[in-house]
Amino acid sequence: MSVNVKLLLTGLLACSMALQATADPLPSWNDTHAKTAIVEYVASVTDPTSEQFVPVAARIAVFDNDGTLWSEQPVYFQLTYALDTLKEKAKKDPSLINSPALKAAAAGDLKTLMAGGMSGLQEVINASHSDMSVMAFQQSVKQWLATARHPKTNMRYDAMIYQPMLELLSYLRDNSFTTYIVSGGGQQFIRAFSEKAYGIPPQQVIGTALHAQYELIDGKPQITKKPDVSFLDDGPGKPVGIATVIGKKPIFVGGNSDGDFEMLEWGSSNELPSFGLIVHHTDAKREFAYDRDSHIGKLDKGLKQASSRGWLVVDMKEDWAKVYPKTP
Amino acid sequence: MSVNVKLLLTGLLACSMALQATADPLPSWNDTHAKTAIVEYVASVTDPTSEQFVPVAARIAVFDNDGTLWSEQPVYFQLTYALDTLKEKAKKDPSLINSPALKAAAAGDLKTLMAGGMSGLQEVINASHSDMSVMAFQQSVKQWLATARHPKTNMRYDAMIYQPMLELLSYLRDNSFTTYIVSGGGQQFIRAFSEKAYGIPPQQVIGTALHAQYELIDGKPQITKKPDVSFLDDGPGKPVGIATVIGKKPIFVGGNSDGDFEMLEWGSSNELPSFGLIVHHTDAKREFAYDRDSHIGKLDKGLKQASSRGWLVVDMKEDWAKVYPKTP
Repeated sequence: MSVNVKLLLTGLLACSMALQATADPLPSWNDTHAKTAIVEYVASVTDPTSEQFVPVAARIAVFDNDGTLWSEQPVYFQLTYALDTLKEKAKKDPSLINSPALKAAAAGDLKTLMAGGMSGLQEVINASHSDMSVMAFQQSVKQWLATARHPKTNMRYDAMIYQPMLELLSYLRDNSFTTYIVSGGGQQFIRAFSEKAYGIPPQQVIGTALHAQYELIDGKPQITKKPDVSFLDDGPGKPVGIATVIGKKPIFVGGNSDGDFEMLEWGSSNELPSFGLIVHHTDAKREFAYDRDSHIGKLDKGLKQASSRGWLVVDMKEDWAKVYPKTP
Repeated sequence: MSVNVKLLLTGLLACSMALQATADPLPSWNDTHAKTAIVEYVASVTDPTSEQFVPVAARIAVFDNDGTLWSEQPVYFQLTYALDTLKEKAKKDPSLINSPALKAAAAGDLKTLMAGGMSGLQEVINASHSDMSVMAFQQSVKQWLATARHPKTNMRYDAMIYQPMLELLSYLRDNSFTTYIVSGGGQQFIRAFSEKAYGIPPQQVIGTALHAQYELIDGKPQITKKPDVSFLDDGPGKPVGIATVIGKKPIFVGGNSDGDFEMLEWGSSNELPSFGLIVHHTDAKREFAYDRDSHIGKLDKGLKQASSRGWLVVDMKEDWAKVYPKTP
């Protein structure tokens, strides 16, 4: 390369860095402490002259999905998918509804279903999520997303993603972080929309998984989803999922419920400078307000310990100028 | 960007592409059919004007490890690690050797150990691989690699990696492939050396896994390896591992034994143009010669069906100019 070209390229690089430094990377965040804390952290770990500097290979950021990247009320959207799918299936073959839990689910009677605990829920998940190929399942999720509407907002479920978190994901990626989803929700469910919604490709989605099996159907190989959970990516399962799939400790962890507590704790134990972020749902008007007493996304332990552990609690009402991309 | 700079950059790009096209990307491969087939495939899927063109996001290449990227005779290197570790542990605490399988293992009596089948092997793996943190385990693997020597070559085990395959990995990465290891060997074992040996980072290593648990030890979180296999990444388990971790079907699959058959079949079922490669161990002088009758790395079904399935069988003796990086 000639010296002139080198000079030109150096100039271009300096120019692009200067632009990055002046443009607001988080326009949907209000100018409160939360935004400042995030920007200061990212600036320090990406500054090669800083003692806080973190090499690119270690810039791993992990985010919960339900309640952290998209809404989760009045019930996890994936549960709504399961109930809708079950109802559709029951129309075609009523004999599928062969237990009290499935009967409650098909009738939309969530109260009875939830009262039955995990085994009833597992029946519903099995009946709606298994005995089909991963490809057919994801096709079904995409179809559901295209037609289903949220009962409160009447929006598509995948439009109920948080604009400030989309900006945070992009901001981190622009600073050479690799962004992962680590969700208690289904891994293959999230993969059906994560790339389009969040710019997060399949290989960066870790989630709860059912058993899976390699099969030849009419000579064609497929991965078939089988009943029952093989890996529960929640609570202490989240750091295990991270250790298994990524094999590195994250430096940036975002969550919203006590199911993210261990993942936050795991990130904070990194020897490198780390950042923990909890989305606190305080905005009943624009989204939902809930924490300690919620049956979905319960946040109690995290809220109590956030301050002593140095985690940022994002107050949705105060810190976010905007909630969803398509609403004011 | 000014027009002049654009022109300069275009010129630079063309220049670098021309250099890439003329330098031999696979210098340790002889000029035989194997090399031609690989180069022609990579050229076709990376040519935007070709009907065979594959977008970067779908350029997923997966490789078995034992016998495909490094040697595996006279026994899988990881088994040697297990036996060496067990002997060391037994010196400090003889009470550990409390079963016939462990007794045989500690005495180096492989014949008796192997005759006991999988349950004996699992005992040895549990005794040498579990009840410690992932970090401590990988430290132990690194220490072992630094001191242990192969009985035939007297080389470090991680020096017995195949130079032609290192070149193939680099060549694919230079053409925007993402390279993964998908091994029947232990995921955390391979991660202890894969980045240094192959340029493959932890998040691109899929392998067999023991159970793992998140624990607080003296208030410090760690991931502890627990006894027994939670995921067996072999045979039909390999496409399942790929579907779980990557969530995309590979277009390039490299293996060497019948344990890679389903992974090769899975890659071949890709709607995009795919490539299957089998390393055939034909070189008793420079490495080892074995296939159908070997107790390690048995290759029978793959050899029979390679031709009808369009998989390239690499004849190590004929196709490779060099085997290991540090031997002639």
